[in-house]
Amino acid sequence: MFGVSMVDLVIVGSVALDTVKTPFGIAERALGGSATYASYSASFFAKPGIVGIVGADFPQEHLNMLSKRNIDLEGIEKSEGKTFFWEGYYEYDMNEAHTVKTELNCFADFKPKIPDSYKNKDFLFLGNIHPSLQLDVLDQMEKRPKLVISDTMNFWIKSERDKVIELVRESDIVLFNEGEARMLFSTPSTIKAAREILKLNSDLAIIKQGEHGSVLFTKDSHFSAPGYPLEEVRDPTGAGDTFAGAMIGYLSQHPELTESNYRKAMIYASAVASHTAEGFSLSKLQEISIEQINARFNEFRKIVEF
Amino acid sequence: MFGVSMVDLVIVGSVALDTVKTPFGIAERALGGSATYASYSASFFAKPGIVGIVGADFPQEHLNMLSKRNIDLEGIEKSEGKTFFWEGYYEYDMNEAHTVKTELNCFADFKPKIPDSYKNKDFLFLGNIHPSLQLDVLDQMEKRPKLVISDTMNFWIKSERDKVIELVRESDIVLFNEGEARMLFSTPSTIKAAREILKLNSDLAIIKQGEHGSVLFTKDSHFSAPGYPLEEVRDPTGAGDTFAGAMIGYLSQHPELTESNYRKAMIYASAVASHTAEGFSLSKLQEISIEQINARFNEFRKIVEF
Repeated sequence: MFGVSMVDLVIVGSVALDTVKTPFGIAERALGGSATYASYSASFFAKPGIVGIVGADFPQEHLNMLSKRNIDLEGIEKSEGKTFFWEGYYEYDMNEAHTVKTELNCFADFKPKIPDSYKNKDFLFLGNIHPSLQLDVLDQMEKRPKLVISDTMNFWIKSERDKVIELVRESDIVLFNEGEARMLFSTPSTIKAAREILKLNSDLAIIKQGEHGSVLFTKDSHFSAPGYPLEEVRDPTGAGDTFAGAMIGYLSQHPELTESNYRKAMIYASAVASHTAEGFSLSKLQEISIEQINARFNEFRKIVEF
Repeated sequence: MFGVSMVDLVIVGSVALDTVKTPFGIAERALGGSATYASYSASFFAKPGIVGIVGADFPQEHLNMLSKRNIDLEGIEKSEGKTFFWEGYYEYDMNEAHTVKTELNCFADFKPKIPDSYKNKDFLFLGNIHPSLQLDVLDQMEKRPKLVISDTMNFWIKSERDKVIELVRESDIVLFNEGEARMLFSTPSTIKAAREILKLNSDLAIIKQGEHGSVLFTKDSHFSAPGYPLEEVRDPTGAGDTFAGAMIGYLSQHPELTESNYRKAMIYASAVASHTAEGFSLSKLQEISIEQINARFNEFRKIVEF
């Protein structure tokens, strides 16, 4: 792997070990993390390079699996400490994760270092980390990427609102869910929150609605991508990151950033994210092929027809 | 108004006075009730007859307004008591109504009496009342109507589960929202709840998702009707009844009960219901015309296009 790293897009975020309990079972110290889910998801469409940190306890088999999957690992830093660990559970309402334990471990001091060979890439996903670090990654790029999609969370909206606002200004899309978008702009209305996002800089705002799908707003149009009607939601962990990864993976291969392509990217993102929720960790993602994703994409056409 | 009442469909439910406070204002003792919203909504498409009860304090102007609207009032019983009164408020999250006071008044002893001239009608909406009363209305009909749509609520699902199950068996559609459907079948999954409904009798199950729209399930297909992206939700009271009224009103005029017509009916229902939420009580419904509803219906096509 000397010389130019031929990645199509760069994904920055956490690589983690997760213990997750749901009404359908338990996974212990299974592979997780925003960058993991997003890069695996993106790899159905393009070649991602991942930037993150793992501890000395991180199983080599996970790295081998990602590498075989054609995900570039040049940006994976290996720490002597322990890997980021999250333990949580879901109850009756699978939309809400309950945290039992978060051990940041080596992730506590993580400062993403973008490999030189990634710095001229056009597509960048900034997974949920401190917004100052996300903005720092942008500064590390040689040129402003063509498309920057970011994720954040309630915690940063409460504690670092100004930085999150700056992140909205500097990104093309920040993938808020409804609660986060409403909180950021102190409004009960998702649509008003979307309008505020559009005012900040953006040509478009995308807001995730969990199992209900996602919506896109521009100044004069609106798109609603339905949720896929999953018979079995086994573990929703990582579905949001999967959504983001599929979006940027798809768009990196359809680089005309038209509304039409964004709409298709959202449907692909829903299709891949629905698979993630069908199994613990990345288990279901590892079973499926692009053909199954395309089939689900086509199902969506029938789902909205009237 | 002697002789045959030329109504197209029959709507049974509450006629009420509501005091509602939302972040956008307050309406005091304004016209409300499930049968009121449903019949007004249905009247955009067809001529409904309403079966309900009002007290001596019920303003005649409301009856005059409904009558001018071409809603038949033969089934309105006038009691010497007071009209059903509900007081509630909405906070930041406009999806959840908080009840301050419910005074059943004359509605406590309401036993719907279907006028003879309504008893052979093909289209019947049973608004949310005790499920035994809803079943009794079905018994009063001369023949089984072609289409029976019913509504219910958490309270009856908890206290009268067997009767609610019977209502599902005897109706063509019971319009549950997600929480109600999940509660009825003790499952965290909306889709599993829909499958249970289909097992009970039905060719199709429709589940409402509030601002996120509604979904239809048959044994082998799925339809997702998005929510209309409302800039201003002023008062969501009555939106569910408006949805039901528009559905049955539209279907009474397109009586081939195909899945395609159900899908269109759901979109029309969303279109009318979204108007209801734009104003307090029936104020917005009273301002709009079928042309505005058609325009919103057509907007929905663009909203789901990809």
